[in-house]
Amino acid sequence: MNIKITGIGYYLPENIETSEQLSKKINKSTNWIITRTGVKERRISDIDVDKMGALAAKSALKNSNSTPDLILNASGVGKQVIPDTSVFFQKELGFEGIPSFSIHATCLSFLVALNIAAAFVTNGTYNKILIISSDRGTRGRNFNEPESAALLGDGAAAVVIEKTPNNEESTLIDFTMNTWPIGAHLTEVRGGGTNLHPHDTKTTYDDNLFSMNGPMIYKMARKIVYDQIQKDLHKHKLTTDDINLLVPHQASGLAVKAYSKYGGFNEDKVVNIIDRTGNCVAASIPLALAIAKENNKIKRGDTIYFVGTGAGLSVASMLLRY
Amino acid sequence: MNIKITGIGYYLPENIETSEQLSKKINKSTNWIITRTGVKERRISDIDVDKMGALAAKSALKNSNSTPDLILNASGVGKQVIPDTSVFFQKELGFEGIPSFSIHATCLSFLVALNIAAAFVTNGTYNKILIISSDRGTRGRNFNEPESAALLGDGAAAVVIEKTPNNEESTLIDFTMNTWPIGAHLTEVRGGGTNLHPHDTKTTYDDNLFSMNGPMIYKMARKIVYDQIQKDLHKHKLTTDDINLLVPHQASGLAVKAYSKYGGFNEDKVVNIIDRTGNCVAASIPLALAIAKENNKIKRGDTIYFVGTGAGLSVASMLLRY
Repeated sequence: MNIKITGIGYYLPENIETSEQLSKKINKSTNWIITRTGVKERRISDIDVDKMGALAAKSALKNSNSTPDLILNASGVGKQVIPDTSVFFQKELGFEGIPSFSIHATCLSFLVALNIAAAFVTNGTYNKILIISSDRGTRGRNFNEPESAALLGDGAAAVVIEKTPNNEESTLIDFTMNTWPIGAHLTEVRGGGTNLHPHDTKTTYDDNLFSMNGPMIYKMARKIVYDQIQKDLHKHKLTTDDINLLVPHQASGLAVKAYSKYGGFNEDKVVNIIDRTGNCVAASIPLALAIAKENNKIKRGDTIYFVGTGAGLSVASMLLRY
Repeated sequence: MNIKITGIGYYLPENIETSEQLSKKINKSTNWIITRTGVKERRISDIDVDKMGALAAKSALKNSNSTPDLILNASGVGKQVIPDTSVFFQKELGFEGIPSFSIHATCLSFLVALNIAAAFVTNGTYNKILIISSDRGTRGRNFNEPESAALLGDGAAAVVIEKTPNNEESTLIDFTMNTWPIGAHLTEVRGGGTNLHPHDTKTTYDDNLFSMNGPMIYKMARKIVYDQIQKDLHKHKLTTDDINLLVPHQASGLAVKAYSKYGGFNEDKVVNIIDRTGNCVAASIPLALAIAKENNKIKRGDTIYFVGTGAGLSVASMLLRY
C-alpha cells in the first residue's frame, strides 16, 4: 500500500515526575522502580487527552497546506464514554464537518489505525488522514500495584498519512495482528463500561484503575513476538540488518531490551524512550517514532519495523518503508 | 467495493420492559412515553454485552464452514475500559489467535466498521470479517431524564462480510460520514474516561449516565440528513423508488418517521423497529437490518440505503447492493 507519512508531531507534558518522587507514593525505592520498569521519569499531564492530542496534531500538521479529510483517534482510553475522543480532537483543532471516529486496540491502536488509513488512502476513500494517539495513563494508576503505577506516563503523538507520489518509494509493506483472549485479564481497567458500571455496588475502587500482570504478559508475549519477528523477516527475505529502525511499543524496560537481547537487533537500532516517558499506552509507538524522527534517526527510504503487544492479549507488527 | 453480507444474526434479551412498567420509574405516563419516543417496549439484558454479541455472532455464523479472520467490535459502549470488547467476543465465541479490535463512532459504529471491512476484503487483507454490535444502553439510563431513559433498549446484531464471487453483484456502492463537534455535547456519557474519572471528586452521579438533548439533535440533524440523502440520490442517479429498503438508525420514533414524512420514502420501505426495541445505540442499525431480513424484506440484488446520526454530532449514509 503506497502511503507516505507526511507529518509527525508529539506532545509531552512539561510536568516531570521522577521515580524518586514516585517512590514515596508506591512505597518502593527509586532503585526498585528503575530496575523493575526501566522508567527514570514520566510526564504527568494537567490537560486532558483531547487537548494533548490536538497539540501533537498541530505539530504534525504544521507544514500542511490543507486540512485532513479523516481524523482517527487511536488511543487507549477515551476522554469520556460518549462521544468518542476523535470528536473532541476535531473540536480542539477548530475543524468541522470532517468525518472522525476511534480505533481501540489499547496499546496497538496506532498500528491498527495506520493499517486502516493505508487501506483508505490506497483505495481513494480519503486522501489525507490524521491519526492521533493521546493517553493519560497516570489518571488510572493504582499505587497499590507499584509496577504498573511506575510504568505509566502521559503523552500524545500524531501522524499525517497521504498517498505516495508516483516516483517515490514510501509504502506500508506488511501488517500482522493476532489476539489471544486467554490473556484478556492480564491487562485491564475492569470498570468504566457496562459490566462494572461506576454505579454498580459490585464495582470496587481498584476496578477503575489500571491493572497489569507484567511478568505473565512478558512470559506469554516473548515467544509470540519472537516467532512473529522470524515470520516477518523470513516472509520478506530480510535480516535484522536490513531493518533501519525498530520502533517497539514501550511496554517496559525489559520488553524493549528483549528486542536486542533475544531478537537479534543491534541495541542502537531499537528506539528506547521508556526511561524518560514511561509506557504511554497507545501513544507509546507513535511517540517513539516522533522522537526518533526528531533525533534524525529516520530518513526517507528507511525500512522501519514496528512491533508491540496490547491488552487482549494482542501482538502486532508492521513493516513500513518510510 | 465488491463485498457480500454472507451472514446476519441478532440477539434480543427475553426480558421485556413495557412503557407502562417504565412509566412509574420516570414519572411520566405511558402515553407521554409512546407519543414522545415511539417506544412501546424495550429489552433489558441480564447478560453483558460480550455474551449478547456472541449470541448474535453465533447466529450470523451458523451457516459458515470457516472461522472469520478478523473480528470487529462496532458497539457504542464497551464492556470495560481495557481490553476492548472485541477480545471478549472472541473469548465467548471460543476462538483464539484471530485479530480483533474495536471501532467507536457511537451509533454509527456499525456503518464505519462495514466500510472498513469492505476496504479490507477488497484489498485482500482479510477474507471473512465478523462485525458485532452489542449495546446495553439500559445500564446507563438516567431516570431523571425521561426522554432518553425511555428511548434506550438492549440488543445485539452481527454480520459476516466476504468478497463477492465474480458472477454476483453484491457491492458496497458508497459511504459518507461527516462530524460536527459543535454537537458534541448533545449526546454524552461524560464519565468513564480520563476527564471525569470515576474517582474524580468533580464527577457527579449523572456524569456516568446517558444524556441526550433529543429536540436539539433532531433540529440540527434533520437538515444535514435531508441534504445528505439528496446528495446520495443525485450522485448515483437514483430516486427514492430505486431504494428497495431504507435502514435508518432507530434514534427515535420521530427521527425514523421523518424519512417518510420529509425524506420522500414510502413508509413501508423504512425499517421501523423502535416501537419494540427502543434505540439500541450502535446495535440499532444492524438489528434493523437483521429483523428486516428475518421478515423477508431483503433479497439479493436489493439496493439498501443506511442512514443515521451518532454522537459527535455525526451523520453517515451508505448505499449497498445486497
